[in-house]
Amino acid sequence: MLTYTLNDTDGPKYLQLSKLIKADVESGKLKAGDRLPSKRTFARNSGVSTITVQNAYDQLISEGYVTAVEKKGYYVSSFRKPLKTAPVIESTDLPEPDLPDLSGNRMREESFPFSIWSKLLRETLSTDRDKLLSPIRAEGVPELRKAIAGHLASFRGMSVSPSQIVIGAGTEYLYSLLIQLLGRELVYAIEDPGYGKLSRIYAANAIKYTKVPLDEKGLSAELLCSSGADVAHISPNHHFPTGITMPLERRYELLAWAAAKETRFIIEDDYDSEFRVSKSPVPTMYSLDGSGSVIYMNTFSKSLASTIRISYMVLPETLGDTFRRELSFYASTVPSFEQYTLSRFISEGYFEKHINRMRLYYIRQRQAVIDEILMSPLKDSCTIIENSAGLHFILSINTEKSDETIKSELLKEGIKITSLSDYSSIKDSHKFIINYSNLDMKILRKSLLIISGII
Amino acid sequence: MLTYTLNDTDGPKYLQLSKLIKADVESGKLKAGDRLPSKRTFARNSGVSTITVQNAYDQLISEGYVTAVEKKGYYVSSFRKPLKTAPVIESTDLPEPDLPDLSGNRMREESFPFSIWSKLLRETLSTDRDKLLSPIRAEGVPELRKAIAGHLASFRGMSVSPSQIVIGAGTEYLYSLLIQLLGRELVYAIEDPGYGKLSRIYAANAIKYTKVPLDEKGLSAELLCSSGADVAHISPNHHFPTGITMPLERRYELLAWAAAKETRFIIEDDYDSEFRVSKSPVPTMYSLDGSGSVIYMNTFSKSLASTIRISYMVLPETLGDTFRRELSFYASTVPSFEQYTLSRFISEGYFEKHINRMRLYYIRQRQAVIDEILMSPLKDSCTIIENSAGLHFILSINTEKSDETIKSELLKEGIKITSLSDYSSIKDSHKFIINYSNLDMKILRKSLLIISGII
Repeated sequence: MLTYTLNDTDGPKYLQLSKLIKADVESGKLKAGDRLPSKRTFARNSGVSTITVQNAYDQLISEGYVTAVEKKGYYVSSFRKPLKTAPVIESTDLPEPDLPDLSGNRMREESFPFSIWSKLLRETLSTDRDKLLSPIRAEGVPELRKAIAGHLASFRGMSVSPSQIVIGAGTEYLYSLLIQLLGRELVYAIEDPGYGKLSRIYAANAIKYTKVPLDEKGLSAELLCSSGADVAHISPNHHFPTGITMPLERRYELLAWAAAKETRFIIEDDYDSEFRVSKSPVPTMYSLDGSGSVIYMNTFSKSLASTIRISYMVLPETLGDTFRRELSFYASTVPSFEQYTLSRFISEGYFEKHINRMRLYYIRQRQAVIDEILMSPLKDSCTIIENSAGLHFILSINTEKSDETIKSELLKEGIKITSLSDYSSIKDSHKFIINYSNLDMKILRKSLLIISGII
Repeated sequence: MLTYTLNDTDGPKYLQLSKLIKADVESGKLKAGDRLPSKRTFARNSGVSTITVQNAYDQLISEGYVTAVEKKGYYVSSFRKPLKTAPVIESTDLPEPDLPDLSGNRMREESFPFSIWSKLLRETLSTDRDKLLSPIRAEGVPELRKAIAGHLASFRGMSVSPSQIVIGAGTEYLYSLLIQLLGRELVYAIEDPGYGKLSRIYAANAIKYTKVPLDEKGLSAELLCSSGADVAHISPNHHFPTGITMPLERRYELLAWAAAKETRFIIEDDYDSEFRVSKSPVPTMYSLDGSGSVIYMNTFSKSLASTIRISYMVLPETLGDTFRRELSFYASTVPSFEQYTLSRFISEGYFEKHINRMRLYYIRQRQAVIDEILMSPLKDSCTIIENSAGLHFILSINTEKSDETIKSELLKEGIKITSLSDYSSIKDSHKFIINYSNLDMKILRKSLLIISGII
């Protein structure tokens, strides 16, 4: 006969009882199919009320330990889902070892305009209180969309109406909106090599995608066409990681591809265009497009800070209508505080100043990194694949050693680096990504020595 | 023979040329299938170079007006996508008329702790600079998850490890993560009546869902079982819009339903529990759950401000592991500035004070609204369906008039109200939602007069 001793100090009796029964199930003393005593008998034997037993049984049923069979009684369950055990140790919250990373883009504190941002936030919090608490449209607040349209006009020569702009908490979130907007049945082409997260995002959303190999000009309409894709997700202005800027004729070919069919679209990701070095950039695909096929995307992750979580997309007019009709029930994902502060930052001219300051800094930094490479023992065994845009370039190394060997030798010294093969199905590219935006010269020098020692 | 006159003042010649050809296509002068002159002939006739004509043709091809046939020449296209026309007028950006709304939850300026928030933001911006610019984990910053776990322990008696918490830019965003986490092939049960956006979100993501009718205790395990759903998406602690708090035995029934199968889950949306009036609330389903089947969700939309865009979910341990394995590649959607500020707000005790202050305010406001109703001419023709939780109750009116009649009579006077039928497949509920959180007494008085005049 099942009896347990309960006490007055260990919390509610029904919980004590259910815990004791659980322990017996887990130790095997009670087995699947065993019948538990009736509530009345059990109550009498354990010196508690039948209500207490009822509550204990309910608890056990809800946890899957016990099954109630009508008019028969209570039985130990034969099936049970894995239990929640003790709270997980916080090992997952330990920061990852923060090694110097030649390919990484960790920001320096001086790169963010803290004092101006702080001033504008204060202004926003003291003058816009009513607006700050009013519901935000799915597309974002009008002030910020207007400021972005102005920025695109002056920096990118793009003619965009604020009503075409949708603001979201990061480009990844906007991708998920685009999937809903364009349709889940379409096939998405992504670049190979390319930004690795794209395939993970499409896979996580159960979207069909196909990787299309690039040539030296980027994606070709011919391969795109034969891939059978409907949507081309590309970064033509500064491809990651190769650094390719797609030439004009390629852009026209892709636009012709898109114009030929109603369901074809191009997602143009212009993630770091603010920091191009060259003065006369190729126009965006969006600007060249006349058939309403190009969705332009950009982010403040590179131009301001990745942790600010503000990106935006420019929808062609017809897609904008569809968005307002079908998806505007969503709440905006960006806090109003950030939206109003950023709109001040742009419209009061701070963003332009910030970009100019950072661009100058990056040009100098880039030159310093190149100089360092050209003075290193590696100088005759490598080529810098330069490109006039963005914050990284490619260091091509003349070696027989595998990419993995070079990476692991560096890692032994506590330095990380990424190779082109990390973003591609091609192994051993002998090409490595150098993100110069915040590179420490001592680390670079040491890395160049190590590499030249092993090749 | 096609000739056009170009000039030196209207911008690039190739654009002038392509525009003139476009105009002729649109006017019908040039028809689908018409062959365009060869580049050489055309150039001679228009006094421009062949490169200019080539560029114009490329532009037209990219816009879908013209098709190039290899070794044959250029033809006017037979198919063309709708053109982007002039920028859309900003009519969509005009604010919606902001009528008083008896069911609405617009916040008062005094309800947000502006000065404390401002102070904490300043502190965050001046002391946490390095942290603010460091990449954020998909789940959110550890400090905020720890603060939320502490809050859940003291306010909800929930035992949660910070590693189980995922922070996101609004509950809607978290739903989309849950779809990816639990699986797209599952069927989701939503409550009828219920929060209208849920069905739109599941539909927009092409997820199968089924509406399950509620009885006076909320969702029943029996109907849930026969619906064939795998996931029950419910708000058991204060159902919207009915206000039902699900009794304990119902909770156990649903937990037993969930525990019986590996793929069954309960999403417990606890959106406004901070403002329950009663002192001894029913424990959350999450707290009662022993089989790892309950995902708990909450938001700072009600307890702080909807425009702050911070929500969170608590995942059972096994789902937390899946999340880290499969979805942690996503970037967090909440700016680090907001995350660190909110974590200070909670851990330094301001959130608790804020909730206590607001709860007191809401209790008074609720009593004032009820008094107003009981003193109105409507008093004998209505029942207040009270509930001890949340910021709204239901006003049930004894009338033959349709819900639409009452709504339109009020709207004529510039007052909005929502009925239960707006959230349900049942027509003419004669039940209306009164959100008392920020209700103007004059508006309420006027509305009660109008309603009592027409019933």
